[in-house]
Amino acid sequence: MSSAVPDLPSGPLDMYRKKASFNWKDMCLFLDGEEIVQFKQHVFKTLENDPVFARQPGEDLPIETRRELTFLRMKQLFRYNFLTKEEAMANPWKSVGLQDCLGMYDWALVAKHSLNVGMFGATVGSSGSKRHHQFVESTDNMMTYGCFALTEVSHGSNTRAMRTTATYDPNTQEFVINSPDFEAAKFWVGNLGKTATHAVVFAQLYTPDQQCHGLHSFIVPVRDPNTLLALPGVLVGDMGKKLGQNGLDNGFAMFHNVRIPRENLLNKTGDVTADGRYVTPYKDPNKRFGASLGALSGGRVYISRMALINLKLALTVAIRFSATRKQFGPKDTEEIPVLEYQLQQWRLIPYLAAAYALEHFTKTIFMNFLEFQIGQMMKNDSGRQAEMGKEIHAIGCSSKPLGSWIAQRGIQECREACGGHGYLAMNRLGDLRDDNDPNCTYEGDNNVLLQQTSSYLLNWLQAKRQGGARIESPLHTVDFLDNLQTILQSGFTATTLEECLDPAVSVAAYKWLVCFLLEESEQRLRQQRASGRDEFEARNNSQVYYCRTLAIAYIEFNCLQRFHLLTVDQDTPAGLRPVLSRLCALYGLWSLSNHLATLYQGNYLSGKTPAELIQTAVLRLCYELKDDAVALVDVFAPTDFILNSPIGCADGQLYKNLWSTVMQGSRVLERPFWWKEFCSNKPVVGSLRPKL
Amino acid sequence: MSSAVPDLPSGPLDMYRKKASFNWKDMCLFLDGEEIVQFKQHVFKTLENDPVFARQPGEDLPIETRRELTFLRMKQLFRYNFLTKEEAMANPWKSVGLQDCLGMYDWALVAKHSLNVGMFGATVGSSGSKRHHQFVESTDNMMTYGCFALTEVSHGSNTRAMRTTATYDPNTQEFVINSPDFEAAKFWVGNLGKTATHAVVFAQLYTPDQQCHGLHSFIVPVRDPNTLLALPGVLVGDMGKKLGQNGLDNGFAMFHNVRIPRENLLNKTGDVTADGRYVTPYKDPNKRFGASLGALSGGRVYISRMALINLKLALTVAIRFSATRKQFGPKDTEEIPVLEYQLQQWRLIPYLAAAYALEHFTKTIFMNFLEFQIGQMMKNDSGRQAEMGKEIHAIGCSSKPLGSWIAQRGIQECREACGGHGYLAMNRLGDLRDDNDPNCTYEGDNNVLLQQTSSYLLNWLQAKRQGGARIESPLHTVDFLDNLQTILQSGFTATTLEECLDPAVSVAAYKWLVCFLLEESEQRLRQQRASGRDEFEARNNSQVYYCRTLAIAYIEFNCLQRFHLLTVDQDTPAGLRPVLSRLCALYGLWSLSNHLATLYQGNYLSGKTPAELIQTAVLRLCYELKDDAVALVDVFAPTDFILNSPIGCADGQLYKNLWSTVMQGSRVLERPFWWKEFCSNKPVVGSLRPKL
Repeated sequence: MSSAVPDLPSGPLDMYRKKASFNWKDMCLFLDGEEIVQFKQHVFKTLENDPVFARQPGEDLPIETRRELTFLRMKQLFRYNFLTKEEAMANPWKSVGLQDCLGMYDWALVAKHSLNVGMFGATVGSSGSKRHHQFVESTDNMMTYGCFALTEVSHGSNTRAMRTTATYDPNTQEFVINSPDFEAAKFWVGNLGKTATHAVVFAQLYTPDQQCHGLHSFIVPVRDPNTLLALPGVLVGDMGKKLGQNGLDNGFAMFHNVRIPRENLLNKTGDVTADGRYVTPYKDPNKRFGASLGALSGGRVYISRMALINLKLALTVAIRFSATRKQFGPKDTEEIPVLEYQLQQWRLIPYLAAAYALEHFTKTIFMNFLEFQIGQMMKNDSGRQAEMGKEIHAIGCSSKPLGSWIAQRGIQECREACGGHGYLAMNRLGDLRDDNDPNCTYEGDNNVLLQQTSSYLLNWLQAKRQGGARIESPLHTVDFLDNLQTILQSGFTATTLEECLDPAVSVAAYKWLVCFLLEESEQRLRQQRASGRDEFEARNNSQVYYCRTLAIAYIEFNCLQRFHLLTVDQDTPAGLRPVLSRLCALYGLWSLSNHLATLYQGNYLSGKTPAELIQTAVLRLCYELKDDAVALVDVFAPTDFILNSPIGCADGQLYKNLWSTVMQGSRVLERPFWWKEFCSNKPVVGSLRPKL
Repeated sequence: MSSAVPDLPSGPLDMYRKKASFNWKDMCLFLDGEEIVQFKQHVFKTLENDPVFARQPGEDLPIETRRELTFLRMKQLFRYNFLTKEEAMANPWKSVGLQDCLGMYDWALVAKHSLNVGMFGATVGSSGSKRHHQFVESTDNMMTYGCFALTEVSHGSNTRAMRTTATYDPNTQEFVINSPDFEAAKFWVGNLGKTATHAVVFAQLYTPDQQCHGLHSFIVPVRDPNTLLALPGVLVGDMGKKLGQNGLDNGFAMFHNVRIPRENLLNKTGDVTADGRYVTPYKDPNKRFGASLGALSGGRVYISRMALINLKLALTVAIRFSATRKQFGPKDTEEIPVLEYQLQQWRLIPYLAAAYALEHFTKTIFMNFLEFQIGQMMKNDSGRQAEMGKEIHAIGCSSKPLGSWIAQRGIQECREACGGHGYLAMNRLGDLRDDNDPNCTYEGDNNVLLQQTSSYLLNWLQAKRQGGARIESPLHTVDFLDNLQTILQSGFTATTLEECLDPAVSVAAYKWLVCFLLEESEQRLRQQRASGRDEFEARNNSQVYYCRTLAIAYIEFNCLQRFHLLTVDQDTPAGLRPVLSRLCALYGLWSLSNHLATLYQGNYLSGKTPAELIQTAVLRLCYELKDDAVALVDVFAPTDFILNSPIGCADGQLYKNLWSTVMQGSRVLERPFWWKEFCSNKPVVGSLRPKL
């Protein structure tokens, strides 16, 4: 069966590969299953064999060229149509696998494609009605091209404060879309910079009686599909260079009383009749508002995975480099791989453990999300479905910060751990960092999102305190809080290193930690209110050290707990359980290390021994995993073509690959075109110095 | 007197400026003095008025153009000759001021200039003799161009393992420079990519008797100064794109038996006679090796300051943005600046405190370094001078990690704190992060360097234990260790918030912390040796949690202590002392927060109160400083032209500046040149899908 996984070339990495404690192909098949493994290989090979996808490590391309290339590649994706909508429905893991593969190649390409088909198409599909099907169809075959325009120059997080207006004119049965000033220009819209012909625009809906009905979405044509020229009244353009993902053309648009047909209102949550009356199936405007933004919440779960993919790529580069880069040694004559240094192990291997924890975590929360989505499609309006919606929201709002920050820090550590070679663009760590960075910001700033999660937890506690209700949620991520008082009585019990190597130690500590932080947060809020602060201020002043940390601890615990269950599951192959268990223990203790002070503060730990035990256990686990590290990255590494990093190639020929890439650089051996500026016209030293 | 400091334009930032507790111009003059303030303004204005230095925020330039521009600007610096060598000698602060100004504009320009004049010129001057003066002169007027070639493809930190050879041939009285293979190619050499005509090359010196005399430096011509074409036998080229500082042409070189005159050996530490005998004034080859690398150690002190400059720029952008960006508020109708949120304050203001701590720290260690350097020039060979050398080395090896890591994290926090606008290249936070990043790596990897510092501290302890000698160093940074036992008996004494606001609290805690970590590190080393590990392994296994943390705590303490002295100094103007004292207290407590677990572990803290007090104090100090934050960045902000970030302009017109920069972008409103690729040749969905 393992023939589905292609062999890796032999070379300097063999030394570590032979020492691995498990079979890496078995791990591939366990994590992905044969069908997905083969599908991924098919996607990788297809891209590699198509000249449209050809590239050079570290190439220096102008932004316009990057955008052109991304466009041409996106067009090619239509032709390959790797997954039909039916296939994606039949096996959602294939969707995830496809996004993973394309993201490993370039996230800008994924964004360019999915903002059109997914974001524009899906929003029109879900927020509109039959009359809008034509727009979905024409994006599906690229006759038109879509984008999603919510954010404005001066408003991001505070969506309610958006200032674009859509005023209904019953005389012509049109909406008039208008941007009052440049602060209200739509901004950051992916695909709008150069390509989009149609935008889903969020605007405040006004009826002729001058009443505002809140934010609604409208299909607004912005460019002529036959010429790509802007339509009259639309000032649309490109925002310019970003820190990363420059293949995607983010853009802006200002609307000067642009008229669109009444039917272009996406009317699921509210409609305007021909004569200008507002009608809505919802009675509660808050619920309506929530539904119209509902299309946003799915993305966060997937962003956690995008971040993980970036971390995997960076770790592949850094671990393979560390296993082949030799520096110093016990004798002057013999150098050892830098992976042999405890310090290097401690810098990298915990991130490797985190990647395995997140692999399982992102998959299981995706499964949770699917369950929720199916309920929505079935129009399930049970209380359980509503509760699951809240729980998924709390998970998504914290899993995105968890994933994006671990990846951000992990990639930076990989960059530094590769020294100067990590600073060369061709080795891709810079691109990975830059492309990952917006995961911290878009679909909600991490710090702002965490407030949603802590509020969710605090609401449970409050409900219990007020009505004595049992704390129990559909996905069971909060059930343990029902035993809060008992858990808060517990303490650290491990007394030997051996005991500390059991993941159960950090699982127990995290349970206590979340309970402690929940109680502390509640108390802090109470104090704030008691001292006369209004709710807005009380919440704001309870974030640092309290609610924010609470949300982080909750999601770290959730991630750890899911991973722990996997390692003890009888369906997990016996040959893989030991290494997974070590990864789980390391992830738990390493994450917990950030909270040691709190554990001491709340007297869960006391004295010198516990912290020492935890530290010794972390180092021991790093050591035990260092011979598995290369095999562990082989499991999730893409092909060399996709990885696109000479120091991270599967053959481990670090210097040969590096050197040949350097020599293939553009004009590498040529003198600069400005050579005469050096050779003649020599400066007279001080000639421009002001005479006193 | 404060007329030396130009006024700032009025605008939305006035609100905060008016609330400031101190006069920002007084602070400028206190920190820099009038002469330097005026000199900096002169440099800023000169660059702004010269079209060669013109630029657009976020411009997208090919690397070749970046390198050309940097070259032309560097050439212009020769013409301006802002500081003659005599002026720099007379007032070394002007040198620092000039580097600060140029670095605020672009570090690649500083590097391009100083690698030639400073690194090449100074090394030839200090490691060579009279016969080499011609090389210094010809770089001083740009007839030739120099670079410094030490690092090889496969060796960076381990300099002794360099493999380039220089074999003396008595028949022709030449050295033959050779690179055995591409792993021994010189790599990362700044200026070598496109410009250098001469390199100082480090190579293993072999005499005709086939004896190796270790690493020596040689002047090797690499390109013809009349054509910039490579000389025969030299394979020299450009390494390609880096994550940042792309104005500097880093390059590589391989030498195929390149012959240079015997006289090109820089012969201060050793020479070869015409007939091929090796002669040296040093008897100890280790000392010789140290001396030949001596030229390297000055840089680290300045790198700490380079990092600080980057942090200052990022903070200017992020604080001005936070003071003008409004989002949410107590009422739906009224939004408040994001700087008003406790969370935003906590994310940014501690870095502002760190910037002020580092400002004083980098200046005082530069002064220490000057004292040492003067001693060297005076050929002072006292024991004190040697001790000072060791101490400066220990400081430099930890101040570089301290500065570069604070800047790295601080800039990232600034980027995230500016949300999407922080991700736009035009706002410069990406460039600052990328240009700062190599500070963590060059002149010694941070983690490797920290070992030098911890060894220095451990040696003191060992000397005391063995001989009972008093611990006392020329710069007094270790004197407190003499009271180690007494200090270890101390504990946290603050019981009220008021007490905790005094910087003395963290000064005392840090003293304990360094002593505790020193003893723990020593014990760890002893355990490792006792368990049979050799010295190499024992050291490696004592880094994580022990020696590495020790070195970090030592330098944080040193930085804090110097700042504390400044705040209580009677020469510090009374009007500035309160704000400086708050900054000092915040820097101390915030840095200390990373070590809370250790403080609990060692029983310096116990129970819930101390950590709560520290946290409450941090938040209180952030709150007390938030109205000063804008004025505090006004103090160190350069002119808008130099800052080059629309959201960070001094007038605070966030959106106007942003919008006008967007509209001035290249081809911003035009359709893409590949528009026909969209409009015709539509893809047939699935046409390339394999038929089954």
